[in-house]
Amino acid sequence: MSILIKNVLLNNKRCNVKIESNRFVKIESNLTIQFESNNSTQIIDGSKFAILPTFYNMHTHAAMSLMRGYADDLELHTWLEDHIWPLEKNLNEDIVYHGARLAILEMIKSGTVFFNDMYFFPFGTARAAEELGIRADIAPVLIDGMDDSKTEDLITYAKDTIDHSPLYSDRVRFTVSPHAIYTVSSKTLQQSAALALNEDLPFQIHISETKTEVKNALNTFGLRPVQYLDSLGILTPNVSLIHCVHIDDTDRNILYERGVNVVHCPISNMKLTSGRFEYRSLHDIGIHLTLGTDGACSNNNLSILDEMKFAALSAKTDSEDPTVAPAQEIFNIATINGAKAAGLNTGVIEEGKLADCILVNLDHPYLVPSGHLISDMVYSASPECIDTVICDGRILMRDRKVMGEEEIIRDANEAYLDLIQK
Amino acid sequence: MSILIKNVLLNNKRCNVKIESNRFVKIESNLTIQFESNNSTQIIDGSKFAILPTFYNMHTHAAMSLMRGYADDLELHTWLEDHIWPLEKNLNEDIVYHGARLAILEMIKSGTVFFNDMYFFPFGTARAAEELGIRADIAPVLIDGMDDSKTEDLITYAKDTIDHSPLYSDRVRFTVSPHAIYTVSSKTLQQSAALALNEDLPFQIHISETKTEVKNALNTFGLRPVQYLDSLGILTPNVSLIHCVHIDDTDRNILYERGVNVVHCPISNMKLTSGRFEYRSLHDIGIHLTLGTDGACSNNNLSILDEMKFAALSAKTDSEDPTVAPAQEIFNIATINGAKAAGLNTGVIEEGKLADCILVNLDHPYLVPSGHLISDMVYSASPECIDTVICDGRILMRDRKVMGEEEIIRDANEAYLDLIQK
Repeated sequence: MSILIKNVLLNNKRCNVKIESNRFVKIESNLTIQFESNNSTQIIDGSKFAILPTFYNMHTHAAMSLMRGYADDLELHTWLEDHIWPLEKNLNEDIVYHGARLAILEMIKSGTVFFNDMYFFPFGTARAAEELGIRADIAPVLIDGMDDSKTEDLITYAKDTIDHSPLYSDRVRFTVSPHAIYTVSSKTLQQSAALALNEDLPFQIHISETKTEVKNALNTFGLRPVQYLDSLGILTPNVSLIHCVHIDDTDRNILYERGVNVVHCPISNMKLTSGRFEYRSLHDIGIHLTLGTDGACSNNNLSILDEMKFAALSAKTDSEDPTVAPAQEIFNIATINGAKAAGLNTGVIEEGKLADCILVNLDHPYLVPSGHLISDMVYSASPECIDTVICDGRILMRDRKVMGEEEIIRDANEAYLDLIQK
Repeated sequence: MSILIKNVLLNNKRCNVKIESNRFVKIESNLTIQFESNNSTQIIDGSKFAILPTFYNMHTHAAMSLMRGYADDLELHTWLEDHIWPLEKNLNEDIVYHGARLAILEMIKSGTVFFNDMYFFPFGTARAAEELGIRADIAPVLIDGMDDSKTEDLITYAKDTIDHSPLYSDRVRFTVSPHAIYTVSSKTLQQSAALALNEDLPFQIHISETKTEVKNALNTFGLRPVQYLDSLGILTPNVSLIHCVHIDDTDRNILYERGVNVVHCPISNMKLTSGRFEYRSLHDIGIHLTLGTDGACSNNNLSILDEMKFAALSAKTDSEDPTVAPAQEIFNIATINGAKAAGLNTGVIEEGKLADCILVNLDHPYLVPSGHLISDMVYSASPECIDTVICDGRILMRDRKVMGEEEIIRDANEAYLDLIQK
């Protein structure tokens, strides 16, 4: 299977782009040069489009899309204890599968082809990702309630889950994600980190999300959250730390020196009033920043387009400097930085890279007048600007149609009724 | 001309909605009751849709959509002095007309049917609004450079513009908008306010946008900006004050007591780092709040959907309270509050009201699972969720198609080249 995208705009030049199997194999700006094609080559007229990298959503809880709008505008503990946690008791693999399908549909329709997931019933999420053709790192959420007698069982569960990865394509694998330092014992944290290192896998954890978390860590461990993780020896470059809202100078230096990835979730931080992410200081020291939507409950969609606009504008306003977080920088964080953190050789349209790309409609009002595409993608674009999504050399969306979307929507509405037990 | 929308969701109930001329004339939840219809009745199957009020964009500079992405991520004075103002010297009525058409296309596609405009060449903007079927209050921007020898000419110009209103339909009229207290003399401010009162028209002015403006007002007038306007006697209920970012307790009380409208432009405030709008204190004292997108240069789109999400989330995060600015409150500010400030008897779907409404696609992923429509509109929806837009009893968009959009896009790209003189 190969794809030939003819006469498409790439970095302000018209090009022909050839995809074979799952790679960009040829990009040619001399349009008179003919590429080989045969009956199995799908040809796309790119004359109305620009080609851009896709987005990489570095933190979400995909199946929570079923809880979109279920409980908004509430104080954090009321939200969790009275609404979300009781509902999560009703989850099963089938509900998670249908929730993840809805989430993946949303993500494809907004140009995202990879998500890093932390949730229950990971096989439900993995099946949805496998079927819908998206990339995913999926971790069962590890929680031991600070009881390290449960460590062994949890690590066995995590290892067993990881051992299922070979049953899926290269796009989908299971990874390691303890929930947080206030729900997971130090023993489970260390052993899960060791498991991730042994298996050469990413490791994700929520950290320094709220002031309360920092205060409690100082009381319990005598250390701030990042410094506590560092004291356990688990901050290595395969680690992605989610949120990192409350960071002091020492924390920041540790994040930089350990080479960890930081996943910024600006919309979730604002909706839950977690605090102000110190974009400028974290970026300027050279920390590898990526973007995540978090779950639909605290967003309430899974569009990296929204996330980029919030990331840029909150960074500017928090630093009182409109030159902070310029469009190209934020776009890179949402694309190539995510791909790098996920260990994917892509995030940029170049020969030899994995063939992930979107085609955006240059005649969409949000991209007019033409000539400022990256700015438009960050500050102006809506999902509708994206016509086509290609992941791993395969077309997932064309003319904004995703195969089976009516069924996904119908099933998600039914799964929601199961979830709320109506 | 009449429209019958059958079996559409309104406030969680299925209804039939009849529009005659420019009013909702009948809303019936007993679906077995037959409405009269004839050959000229357009029937819309509403079974896949919910009907909602439209949005009212209370502050923009429509033609600046041509400058979308032209100069981003810059310090305010560099942005204005080196980029925007030099470009504005090239404006003419034709360029403004094409820029306003692009802006109106965007607004219709995101469910907005009214905009309050302050810009140059108002006849260009008015022609665009008239042709495309949207409502608009359009004011030539009044600037005298603090030189009150120009007052008479400016007021004559404003009055002459207003006198053109009868040439347009009831949807379009000319209003009064001096630019700001640092660009307009007190004499022009007072005489323009008197003109607006005499003509029974709205009056808009930018106020308290930046710290610098407040500091300079204190130096120049010995008063903070709001108090200076009040000292001139021009704060009456027909006045809309744009921005109001830097407000103290006295200012706030004055805004409330004078019954003025405040236009909150959260995205512009964040992008230009103007400061933090004190949503909670302004709302809680009972001030009439509305939303505006400001111009595309400082946004960079004209979608009230984006504006609602930023308004809600910035209000929460600034007050450190996730219960502040709940979805229904923000939705009302974007709809009925805007309509009220514009003097329009609509903003809600009720018999007798002007027939402004949108039909949203309940099968769009961002509105699934169903049952939380207002939350979804504020936190999750993208323009694509909106299928149909009706303004003043006339269909402006159906199945996301606006008549003539290809031509609008083509002309806007050409007008941009004229603007940058390439």
